[in-house]
Amino acid sequence: MILGKVVGTVWATRKDENLVGLSLQIVKHIDLDYKLKDQFVVAVDTVQAGVGDVVLVATGSSARQTVQTKNKPVDAVIMAVVDKLDVSE
Amino acid sequence: MILGKVVGTVWATRKDENLVGLSLQIVKHIDLDYKLKDQFVVAVDTVQAGVGDVVLVATGSSARQTVQTKNKPVDAVIMAVVDKLDVSE
Amino acid sequence: MILGKVVGTVWATRKDENLVGLSLQIVKHIDLDYKLKDQFVVAVDTVQAGVGDVVLVATGSSARQTVQTKNKPVDAVIMAVVDKLDVSE
Amino acid sequence: MILGKVVGTVWATRKDENLVGLSLQIVKHIDLDYKLKDQFVVAVDTVQAGVGDVVLVATGSSARQTVQTKNKPVDAVIMAVVDKLDVSE
Amino acid sequence: MILGKVVGTVWATRKDENLVGLSLQIVKHIDLDYKLKDQFVVAVDTVQAGVGDVVLVATGSSARQTVQTKNKPVDAVIMAVVDKLDVSE
Repeated sequence: MILGKVVGTVWATRKDENLVGLSLQIVKHIDLDYKLKDQFVVAVDTVQAGVGDVVLVATGSSARQTVQTKNKPVDAVIMAVVDKLDVSE
Repeated sequence: MILGKVVGTVWATRKDENLVGLSLQIVKHIDLDYKLKDQFVVAVDTVQAGVGDVVLVATGSSARQTVQTKNKPVDAVIMAVVDKLDVSE
Repeated sequence: MILGKVVGTVWATRKDENLVGLSLQIVKHIDLDYKLKDQFVVAVDTVQAGVGDVVLVATGSSARQTVQTKNKPVDAVIMAVVDKLDVSE
Repeated sequence: MILGKVVGTVWATRKDENLVGLSLQIVKHIDLDYKLKDQFVVAVDTVQAGVGDVVLVATGSSARQTVQTKNKPVDAVIMAVVDKLDVSE
Repeated sequence: MILGKVVGTVWATRKDENLVGLSLQIVKHIDLDYKLKDQFVVAVDTVQAGVGDVVLVATGSSARQTVQTKNKPVDAVIMAVVDKLDVSE
């Protein structure tokens, strides 16, 4: 999974009918010190994540393994809000 | 999903028979300030996006989760036209 | 899909039995001015593309959505020969 | 598969219900001399790997081919602990 | 598919039970002049490739489309040994 931080929201009216009602969040990748990278992904939020939350994003077909995203044309899903990282390099 | 902007169209006569009738658009990746990057992808358009539109592109097997692309050899689909980005880093 | 140009062929005798008879082409990525990049992929050709042809390549599970590649261990397929690009940035 | 080393753990209380009970480890990519790279991935551990272990990570839909991860929204799984690399370039 | 060269082997005792008996090879990416790149992948060998062999590697779900790898948590498979490259840029 990608470790990232929610930095915004995408609004889209014209879209595939199966996307109606889904929340599309902008997630910037972060490093293990929580520093934002330039890279980002637009992901469907399934855990009520908000701006500023550190999250995990699953991509590819795995992004469709939730109740909200099953069989829908989405390739990235926020499936967890991170409380804490324990890092000991 | 990839955030991008439609910058053109691909014309192809000789192709897999399941691709007949599909619209193939060239989508350049953009950053959160709508600035074009060099990277691009060719995607099937399912939401009547046109040149200049900011769009979302789903890739991989997720690109086949639309009525138009089901079971076809395509790995990228435009599934939403973006109205607005709310970004608050 | 990846936009590329066929630059050669791979010959392989010892291979998965399901690959017998498939044509394996070397496709270099190109930019929107048809300039070759260093990056390349080996793809199964399903549209009789030849060296010098500009083509589209579908990757991942989508590469198995053709009659020739169904259920085979291949992750890239040439599914269209490009006639023309209309680009208007 | 990715060759990596476990460097930490992710704690997440709010998450997809199917993730309850799974162990989420932080795995940094390593090179063939076991040197840590900057790149990392968060992966579900299915082989009781711990911090410091050299491991293999399978990604994408392949990450769901274990008893613990089947049908769950996860895209990376630790499926082996590495004893030794035999490298002869 | 990735074009690569086998440079070594991975030994792993503690692993997913479905991996028992599979041969895990280290494959470095190569360019069209057979020069080794830094990038590598660990792949299951299904064609008895050995160190020094030039091979093709299929990744993602396509890596599970062989008799040996079906339904197993592996995302890269060596499915051909390359005899020769015909390149004419």
